[in-house]
Amino acid sequence: MQLATMDSQQQPSVRTIVFRGFLENTSTLIMHTDQRSEKVAQISEQPRAQICWYFADSREQFRLSGTLEIVAPLHEYSAANVQLREAHWHQLSEAAKPSYHWPAPGTTLISGQNPLGSADVNNDHISEHFALLLLNIDTVDHLQLTPSPHQRCIYTIVNNQWKAKKLNP
Amino acid sequence: MQLATMDSQQQPSVRTIVFRGFLENTSTLIMHTDQRSEKVAQISEQPRAQICWYFADSREQFRLSGTLEIVAPLHEYSAANVQLREAHWHQLSEAAKPSYHWPAPGTTLISGQNPLGSADVNNDHISEHFALLLLNIDTVDHLQLTPSPHQRCIYTIVNNQWKAKKLNP
Repeated sequence: MQLATMDSQQQPSVRTIVFRGFLENTSTLIMHTDQRSEKVAQISEQPRAQICWYFADSREQFRLSGTLEIVAPLHEYSAANVQLREAHWHQLSEAAKPSYHWPAPGTTLISGQNPLGSADVNNDHISEHFALLLLNIDTVDHLQLTPSPHQRCIYTIVNNQWKAKKLNP
Repeated sequence: MQLATMDSQQQPSVRTIVFRGFLENTSTLIMHTDQRSEKVAQISEQPRAQICWYFADSREQFRLSGTLEIVAPLHEYSAANVQLREAHWHQLSEAAKPSYHWPAPGTTLISGQNPLGSADVNNDHISEHFALLLLNIDTVDHLQLTPSPHQRCIYTIVNNQWKAKKLNP
């Protein structure tokens, strides 16, 4: 998926990010990030975001708009989210965990510095840099490119009910 | 590729778009769009944009930042760009051309309206809705996920010279 946010100069920013599931029985999508990354600073200023998710096999695109919530030690979060963050850390692959102990992402690479960080990291202990991003989705723009003409439908949530409207593609 | 822009509410917007080449001997990337699309209105207000281009096979991501130029009848453009637009129209597949005669993208689908538009369209005649988007790239953020640790390098153009700086991934 690609997650678009706005940077501090009011300019668009977009990067690839891995889908980590939905919160059960909600429209909230879960992602992982490093608390030190540029996008966390951007989201703190402007929490509105859009995800573009293109499925090449079925030629379908979903554009998911919503508000982002950061679940990490430097931010306030609920007891339920404390548990959720821990559960996601423990499900991470052993190969992925050490990257949260690398030097801060986006900073200048210092020649001679160990890019893998401290060698004696205990992977059972959750990294303070490990953060969840929760996108509370309120609008879905669904485009299907297989039929001709293409089909497009926009879904918006109004009073907890999803409403659909067909658009010209 | 995914193209991110800012909408009129200063919120990020992102969609999949097809790469249509570079202008020869430049850092200008070419895309196609419909002049009536929401992104053209967004770009008229805020021409800064970022493309995310992820290559799954090599596990590389390029984030290309720059300023967008719209090449279409309702916008001023140079004689060279008139020719470029015509050349791109003639290279389009016969299957793609009719979509520029469909009803305006993003408008409400009217039941009973012919979604394919007028049947007697002459594909040799360039559609007034056919537009080029030119991204004049000034920053490239290149991330390689195959090596461990990952490798990241940011390239910026200063006085017509590209400068490279290695970053922590």
